[in-house]
Amino acid sequence: MDPHPFDAATALVPAADGGLEGATHPAWSNMVGPYGGITAAVMLGAAGSHPQRLGEPVSLTVNFAGPVADGPFRIDARPVRTNRSTQHWTLALSQADEVAATGTALFALRRDTWGHQELAAPDAPPAARVPVTPFSGRFAWPARYEMRFVSGPWPDLANPASPLPDDSLSLMWIRDHPPRPLDAASLVALCDAFYPRIFRRRQRFNPSGTVSITTHLHADAVALAAQGARPVLARARAQRFAKGFSDQLVQVWGDDGTLLASSMQTVYAKD
Amino acid sequence: MDPHPFDAATALVPAADGGLEGATHPAWSNMVGPYGGITAAVMLGAAGSHPQRLGEPVSLTVNFAGPVADGPFRIDARPVRTNRSTQHWTLALSQADEVAATGTALFALRRDTWGHQELAAPDAPPAARVPVTPFSGRFAWPARYEMRFVSGPWPDLANPASPLPDDSLSLMWIRDHPPRPLDAASLVALCDAFYPRIFRRRQRFNPSGTVSITTHLHADAVALAAQGARPVLARARAQRFAKGFSDQLVQVWGDDGTLLASSMQTVYAKD
Repeated sequence: MDPHPFDAATALVPAADGGLEGATHPAWSNMVGPYGGITAAVMLGAAGSHPQRLGEPVSLTVNFAGPVADGPFRIDARPVRTNRSTQHWTLALSQADEVAATGTALFALRRDTWGHQELAAPDAPPAARVPVTPFSGRFAWPARYEMRFVSGPWPDLANPASPLPDDSLSLMWIRDHPPRPLDAASLVALCDAFYPRIFRRRQRFNPSGTVSITTHLHADAVALAAQGARPVLARARAQRFAKGFSDQLVQVWGDDGTLLASSMQTVYAKD
Repeated sequence: MDPHPFDAATALVPAADGGLEGATHPAWSNMVGPYGGITAAVMLGAAGSHPQRLGEPVSLTVNFAGPVADGPFRIDARPVRTNRSTQHWTLALSQADEVAATGTALFALRRDTWGHQELAAPDAPPAARVPVTPFSGRFAWPARYEMRFVSGPWPDLANPASPLPDDSLSLMWIRDHPPRPLDAASLVALCDAFYPRIFRRRQRFNPSGTVSITTHLHADAVALAAQGARPVLARARAQRFAKGFSDQLVQVWGDDGTLLASSMQTVYAKD
């Protein structure tokens, strides 16, 4: 049986000098190069599969420094500081000796401590009652997700909303397609699955892209495994668009209402 | 005239090999080593003062990999990728050849594009009508800020609130003390000025600390200069506390209601 497209795209093999080698996968292609979320996932996986890795991922930042060309790449994951219960990583993805993405990651041994969830999941009908939103773009990666928009779907560029929406909110149920049990790598990938918020506000295509994404994981491997391959609820919103950039906050909840991840992006917009 | 404590603590001198040398400053000391915000600021400044620097800071991630000892440190700031209008940096602060903090930064030439602020400033009385909140701790850095808490002040550990607060929100007017005109470095520093959210929720001291902070700057140098040395309005909230860590979202608005920065932290908690 062929591997799942997520596993195929995040597979890495050790290089002779201690780095890791991978390759872009056509199933995840975006307008230029691969979907950013799959790049974030493969960079997290480079740390996660390292023989010196301690514990589980807690936080990941990936910066998209330049376009990733279709083809092979190399990842260098370095545990720069390992303490008793935490481990800090620096990450770099390069092609032809040029860095295309940088990153840092925090891994930790997670322990039971005082806990509380402040941010409740927003109201939404169960995933099974929300139809799958069709996507008919010219690039591949959106077909890697089953998205069920509760609000703020991809704008219909031929029939833009009038008046323009006054917020950038989108809420959707989402899971990998074909379905695959959730894990830390697939969770950081799907935090990037929202189309640029400026498309919603302007109801038109606007050259745009994620430049940096930071994701904080609230759930450990056991909690993610409990979610299985069922859809998770994800929400995105920008707080301000100004002078070529915007932020974008994303939250992801399990179908029992547990907050699994919080994410913040810096998004570039040309116009 | 002596330099302002912020400028004294963020001063760097070139090392013979291209790195930069600085030193911790007692005015910014925390329980162990310096206040994280001043470390973030000096790391941003290392990129900002580099001869190859392009444009202005847009996003900064700093990871506190280990304790910073009082005394000298070294920062290596490397522009790993410079495109036409954006520049990506990797940053490392080390002491005695051990990395104590890592980071990445995005600089860019900012241009006029479509803009909109979605997140309005929360209601608050003008700063002048909110008394300065006294602080009587055994460490120095809180005295580097004039904090005027509108809500969610430092808990009175001798007289904890009853019942315990059911949210982790704090809102305050804040500026440097003594007052200093706002700039990108001082803005990223003050994004770390909130006490750990778990202190508020539990109304007790809980060993805790910022492990990673990412700040997105919405304002360019001109906009920051317009704010001058007047207080800015800052809000902090955690979304979930779980298994040794929490997130913390911070927003900072100018006194005209303009969103200047959005920040997200990963915070460690021992208990």
